[in-house]
Amino acid sequence: KERDEETCLEDPWQDEEYFASYGTLRLHLEMLSDKSRTEAYRQVIFTNSASLRNKVVMDLGCGTGIISLFCAQLSQPSVVYAVEASSIAEYTRQLVKQNDCEEVVTVLQGRAEETELPVQVDVLVSEWMGNCLLFEFMVESVLLARDRWLRKGGVMWPSSAALALVPCQAESYYAEKIAFWEQPYGLDFTPLQPLAQKEFFTKPKFSHLIDPSDCLSAPCDIITMDMYTLQVEDLEEMKGQFHFCVERSGVFHGFTAWFTAHFESLETEGATVELNTGPNSEPTHWKQTLFMLDRPVRVYEGDSISGSIVLHRNPIWRRHMTVTLQWNINSSKEETDNCQVGTKSFPMWR
Amino acid sequence: KERDEETCLEDPWQDEEYFASYGTLRLHLEMLSDKSRTEAYRQVIFTNSASLRNKVVMDLGCGTGIISLFCAQLSQPSVVYAVEASSIAEYTRQLVKQNDCEEVVTVLQGRAEETELPVQVDVLVSEWMGNCLLFEFMVESVLLARDRWLRKGGVMWPSSAALALVPCQAESYYAEKIAFWEQPYGLDFTPLQPLAQKEFFTKPKFSHLIDPSDCLSAPCDIITMDMYTLQVEDLEEMKGQFHFCVERSGVFHGFTAWFTAHFESLETEGATVELNTGPNSEPTHWKQTLFMLDRPVRVYEGDSISGSIVLHRNPIWRRHMTVTLQWNINSSKEETDNCQVGTKSFPMWR
Ligand SMILES: [Ca+2]
Ligand SMILES: [Ca+2]
Repeated sequence: KERDEETCLEDPWQDEEYFASYGTLRLHLEMLSDKSRTEAYRQVIFTNSASLRNKVVMDLGCGTGIISLFCAQLSQPSVVYAVEASSIAEYTRQLVKQNDCEEVVTVLQGRAEETELPVQVDVLVSEWMGNCLLFEFMVESVLLARDRWLRKGGVMWPSSAALALVPCQAESYYAEKIAFWEQPYGLDFTPLQPLAQKEFFTKPKFSHLIDPSDCLSAPCDIITMDMYTLQVEDLEEMKGQFHFCVERSGVFHGFTAWFTAHFESLETEGATVELNTGPNSEPTHWKQTLFMLDRPVRVYEGDSISGSIVLHRNPIWRRHMTVTLQWNINSSKEETDNCQVGTKSFPMWR
Repeated sequence: KERDEETCLEDPWQDEEYFASYGTLRLHLEMLSDKSRTEAYRQVIFTNSASLRNKVVMDLGCGTGIISLFCAQLSQPSVVYAVEASSIAEYTRQLVKQNDCEEVVTVLQGRAEETELPVQVDVLVSEWMGNCLLFEFMVESVLLARDRWLRKGGVMWPSSAALALVPCQAESYYAEKIAFWEQPYGLDFTPLQPLAQKEFFTKPKFSHLIDPSDCLSAPCDIITMDMYTLQVEDLEEMKGQFHFCVERSGVFHGFTAWFTAHFESLETEGATVELNTGPNSEPTHWKQTLFMLDRPVRVYEGDSISGSIVLHRNPIWRRHMTVTLQWNINSSKEETDNCQVGTKSFPMWR
């Protein structure tokens, strides 16, 4: 607690901690090992390689420089500015040399907000997406860079992104964390259940992989972000509505969220590339985010679950947010005809 | 770094941190969900239930009190003192009541070293084992409690324990952390390999599950601990020797370690219960501990790998140790007839 308050006085962005985590290999290895993610960016560069010729590109938060190297390897841009705040940038420079790309790729070590470029750029590419799309709010740096460095008519990659949601079952997670205490080894450990609920279900579960058969309905895009028009102020509070039709009877344990990102073509009629981190695509390192209700609710085919979501950015801790879900369950059965309502706020992480 | 030094001045045992981690449910759930572990203790109580009648038992670091509850449920001891330093003890008291065991089980919240009992005990039971058997050195508290509270002729559970070692392959772990950089997405990322080796192989890998087919030899008990004669001073430096015969040709990536614990019977001819956390038993929450060499070595059936291990307890950070492995590989092939030697020290964690 004391440490937190100390940090608070110093830096509500926790940049030291944040960039230090990208100064070691662990996260970079995780991201590079994520084929869906990395191949999506490779595909974007590959399908646009003709149009990228002679273009000026900015790769924001380039990490080990993989996207910049794809640009140099698959196309002939005039220059790629690879901007990276963490100390991995020193290695990125070595990797650019090792792959003979130093004529094209210029590594700039520093914070995006403080980086100076000699020219505006034609393309601003970045992999800024976090858990539940927004977590860690790297997107703010991308929007600021856009306003300052993207030339009029320039292209953003991703060009748009959406947060998807689905009501779901999470039977085995519930069993593991809550039902477990009912009779372990023939004993009654139920006095621990309120503690377990608090400890395991207050925050969302990152790195959940939902089985498509546990989705109680078709998913729904609840928040969409246009990367050309989105403003930094918009990030303070993002709201969405949902209306799900329950397609199979089951137990409603919670909601699962994930995102998709779309990369428009540089050519007028060119194909869009999509990165989908949902349950019907190959698992990514983001996996999905599970929001557990306090009490599971039995639902039936034909019921509806409607409500709203608010992503409220923490006014102090700028990389954190609270996700508030509000829902009504409307039964389709005449005999029950009851409407259950609920609401729950999940700090992520503060 | 600064934080560490601060803590150092305050408490080289890091007790606040250590006991706080046992004040939440996460670790208790992990331990209770570990069936091999928990059933082994249940089995010990069950097979000794007749002899435990009217005995005085001390359950040291009882956590949620599962072992004490087994005693009360399966036998009729005169009293079980369930000692727990972390704040989970308040819940343990509730669980004892909920299971109608308060006539038998007395929960004492406090550090083992400061706990006062009205009598000496017939049996001192504890689940003190950590990674590589000794990590976190809870065993010291058990030895001190033994010297103070175990009556002459009383029984220790576990009665003995051993650290086992085997030279092994770890191809997929090596591929994931080191070989990966050779040509990801057609690029040359080898400049990152020295960094990767340092970041991933300096410390041992906890929670490794070795496939029995990756053991290059039969395992060997390299350190054994007699819980009646072991002294606290002995923990400062524990040494062992090994001599392995390579039984299958393969790549020697490192050593894997795990432990076994033995529970003698209260009856003269009674059967011993064993808890085995090795690769030929059901996986436990301890899994195994992998020590990666800096460079893999090809070995052949008939080669021998001999050497020594030293577990050196950190003189400042009392819950930590450094494991030093020294090895010679003697080739069985006449044509090569070379002997490779190596040595590596692994902090765990400091
Ligand atoms: Ca990211
Ligand atoms: Ca333990």
